[in-house]
Amino acid sequence: MMLEDAVLGTQDAPSGELPRRTLAYALLTDLYQLTMAQGYWANGKLDEEACFHMFFRENPFKGGFAIACGAAQLAEMIDGFAFSDEDVAYLGSLQAPGGGPLFDEGFLAYLREMRLTLDVDAVREGTVVFPMEPIVRVTGPILQCQLLETALLCCMNFQTLIATKAARVCLAAQAPVAEFGLRRAQGAGGALWASRAAVVGGCASTSNVLAGKMFDIPVSGTHAHSWVMAFDSEIEAFRAYAKTFPKNCILLVDTYDVKQGIEHAIEVGLEMRAQGERLAGIRIDSGDLAWLARYARERLDAAGLVDCGIVLSNDLDEYTIKSIRDQGADVMSWGVGTKLACAYDQPSLGGVYKLSATRVAGCKAWSNRLKVSEQSSKLTLPGVLDVRRYSFADGRIAGDMVFDVNEPVDGEGAIIDPADILRQKKLAGYAFETLLHPLARRGVSVLSDEERSALAARERTAAGISRLDESQKRFLNPHSYPVGLEAGLWHRRASMAAALRESGRADGLR
Amino acid sequence: MMLEDAVLGTQDAPSGELPRRTLAYALLTDLYQLTMAQGYWANGKLDEEACFHMFFRENPFKGGFAIACGAAQLAEMIDGFAFSDEDVAYLGSLQAPGGGPLFDEGFLAYLREMRLTLDVDAVREGTVVFPMEPIVRVTGPILQCQLLETALLCCMNFQTLIATKAARVCLAAQAPVAEFGLRRAQGAGGALWASRAAVVGGCASTSNVLAGKMFDIPVSGTHAHSWVMAFDSEIEAFRAYAKTFPKNCILLVDTYDVKQGIEHAIEVGLEMRAQGERLAGIRIDSGDLAWLARYARERLDAAGLVDCGIVLSNDLDEYTIKSIRDQGADVMSWGVGTKLACAYDQPSLGGVYKLSATRVAGCKAWSNRLKVSEQSSKLTLPGVLDVRRYSFADGRIAGDMVFDVNEPVDGEGAIIDPADILRQKKLAGYAFETLLHPLARRGVSVLSDEERSALAARERTAAGISRLDESQKRFLNPHSYPVGLEAGLWHRRASMAAALRESGRADGLR
Repeated sequence: MMLEDAVLGTQDAPSGELPRRTLAYALLTDLYQLTMAQGYWANGKLDEEACFHMFFRENPFKGGFAIACGAAQLAEMIDGFAFSDEDVAYLGSLQAPGGGPLFDEGFLAYLREMRLTLDVDAVREGTVVFPMEPIVRVTGPILQCQLLETALLCCMNFQTLIATKAARVCLAAQAPVAEFGLRRAQGAGGALWASRAAVVGGCASTSNVLAGKMFDIPVSGTHAHSWVMAFDSEIEAFRAYAKTFPKNCILLVDTYDVKQGIEHAIEVGLEMRAQGERLAGIRIDSGDLAWLARYARERLDAAGLVDCGIVLSNDLDEYTIKSIRDQGADVMSWGVGTKLACAYDQPSLGGVYKLSATRVAGCKAWSNRLKVSEQSSKLTLPGVLDVRRYSFADGRIAGDMVFDVNEPVDGEGAIIDPADILRQKKLAGYAFETLLHPLARRGVSVLSDEERSALAARERTAAGISRLDESQKRFLNPHSYPVGLEAGLWHRRASMAAALRESGRADGLR
Repeated sequence: MMLEDAVLGTQDAPSGELPRRTLAYALLTDLYQLTMAQGYWANGKLDEEACFHMFFRENPFKGGFAIACGAAQLAEMIDGFAFSDEDVAYLGSLQAPGGGPLFDEGFLAYLREMRLTLDVDAVREGTVVFPMEPIVRVTGPILQCQLLETALLCCMNFQTLIATKAARVCLAAQAPVAEFGLRRAQGAGGALWASRAAVVGGCASTSNVLAGKMFDIPVSGTHAHSWVMAFDSEIEAFRAYAKTFPKNCILLVDTYDVKQGIEHAIEVGLEMRAQGERLAGIRIDSGDLAWLARYARERLDAAGLVDCGIVLSNDLDEYTIKSIRDQGADVMSWGVGTKLACAYDQPSLGGVYKLSATRVAGCKAWSNRLKVSEQSSKLTLPGVLDVRRYSFADGRIAGDMVFDVNEPVDGEGAIIDPADILRQKKLAGYAFETLLHPLARRGVSVLSDEERSALAARERTAAGISRLDESQKRFLNPHSYPVGLEAGLWHRRASMAAALRESGRADGLR
């Protein structure tokens, strides 16, 4: 669900139900997907089926893990995929650089009638994931697989990035985190899904009211500096706020002078207490937060306001939060904006979507595909894949195996590092689960309400992080979690790559 | 206009006309704007008027200028601002942390009926702008000013950031740049406006088809690696593409081995020539682009394909493009994705929206407001402001004066650096223009079609950049353009700040 939708007021579901609407996302794609589609159409490849996987090559933020997010929007994108008359008319108006219409009329007529028939499998939102393992698998007509690529990548890359950032911030905070990055986010649409992804990653709430309404996630917030400036004095502004919100009063104390602001807040807090109310907290948004938080705690305690908490904000991320906590600050909750909502230190996840197998429709057997390139780190994964996650008896996860669903799995449960045959691990005997779950069948989403829920995904995130070793969660040089290819897959890939480099053929055969 | 809107197919304007629709953006805000609004409502401040300015404190990317962008969407946000029954019902369902409903029923009834009556003035899209000068001015009821703040900042910060990045990339490229960052952008909504902002900043085209349709901007693209992998050999894939797109054929040569790919492309290029067609170009998307571009040029020339151009892509930004050109690469056009679409090296512009004056409705005189804080760099600007841009006789711009529209301007045209009284410049005698133009009056947008057009804004960008000195355009330590406060304004601000630090009063008076 995206912005206009919500704001046009057409989608409000009965309370408690999740929204289900269909939107036409078909033009949300790169032009080359459409030119290639015409190429497949013109070159007799309408019956060609393909298998693509989305995966990423490195954890974001130099971290030890990522939190998958994006399946809920992806399901909507699939349900809403169709070319309208206007879309087709627009495409028909485009000119080739060398002259004449870019698109063939026959092809446009085909697009107008086309409906997705793809099968899509994906990891559930909130699942802990790692580099080089498929997060999404798409199978079906190659033309359709390509048309979906760009929107799928946009959705999965961005939301996984933000959910991961949020999980890191929450690991550092060890107290509720409110996401409030809307004003610095990358556009309104970006902000809406960023707010949702932040909650999937562990945030307690968002300031973004529309996201709260659309995704049924908690919202929070109190007042800004401008509130204080709109009154003739700070104490007057504080009193007015306390009067209006006796059950939700957190006073921002740094509009003019923090120390003076704290004294004014204490004065109002004592007045509230005398009236049977409670000052819930004070917020500090500038200056040396670690020092000021300790100072404020002392002043509040000295005044008897031991139940008044301290909220900190101002350009926070996991590193500053950890540093402030390490310095002994006693913080009730944190407000995190810019650096979370746009993942400031790494604003994009470089997830890719790679062709791994093709077959003629109706034929059961897949022909594996591989891309080699100048950089061997960019070698793709061939086959139709899934991931087995093995666990130790205590619940901690032991290793992930990428395997081909159409091939037998090696009996020793051996996994081999995609880039280094010497790094192997044997996992036979451990319990395992598989990570890819049906997201769409024959072009229609099949997620349950629980699979679409941001709050359910947040529980999944917490459960997944609790199964990581401490060494995998630290920020500095985290321990690398073992992800490997099933032994047979590793060897098939290696021999295909060798043959390809010689022959320039996609199937590795001369 | 945002995504769902476009895709619901309700907004298609007759060809040539710009879309005009109204959407309800009212909930796209931080919760604290709504709690403060209830505070103003409850504390007898419905008649209080305010003036806010949006400005930023530092140029993005350590550059010498920025390109303003966002006015077109801001106009739509204003026209679409209203609380629906569903919105109000949602707000009514929110609980205060201390128990009971967060919002008063009377306040919600007020919101339901409220319509914006704000006046908004803004610089035109594509205007070159600098730190510490107002980009947008909002005047009207303080409650309304605050409700608009978050969406306004989101819109202006993000689009100004991307337009500026695009202008820098285009300065480096000196050849057409295609933006194709959708797959790595921050969500679909973010990507749409990013694509438009990239064109405002100077890009020749975008790969984003929906953005092309929505904003009437050029789209471009050819094929991906997967096209090559979908055929049994590279040469077969190239031949099929050339056959389908003889007027738009740019072949991607690095799926398997770049040198081999170049030879295959030459083979197909010669076949096309024999049939009276032309291979427009080859694209290289990996490896050492500077070296490979020179190598490819030599091979193409040797084969007689002197009219086949070279397109480069792969993680480019202004720095890598400049480096590749400095090494002598002859490049027909550039494809720039991730680092442009999410402004990778600085993914957020820290623009702020600050209260600068208040008055009781019906009263003509404004009372100036100022925020001081622990950091003197965060001192705001008081008054109701506009910007005069002075020019030298040769057209180059000489300096910008921030002035109060309700006060006389100093006769010498002196401007004083906001942070340093010793940095002054006298501009009397030079021609000047003012930068803020009406965007909305009494809550209704008043932009002309030309003011809403991305392509017209792109022309404005080019004209503005041509009026900068070379020293202001360079990437490394650019020369700082003079922006100062009108002398009277500077002194009023200084005495207010001094008084405020003592008194803790917003009007600087005891």
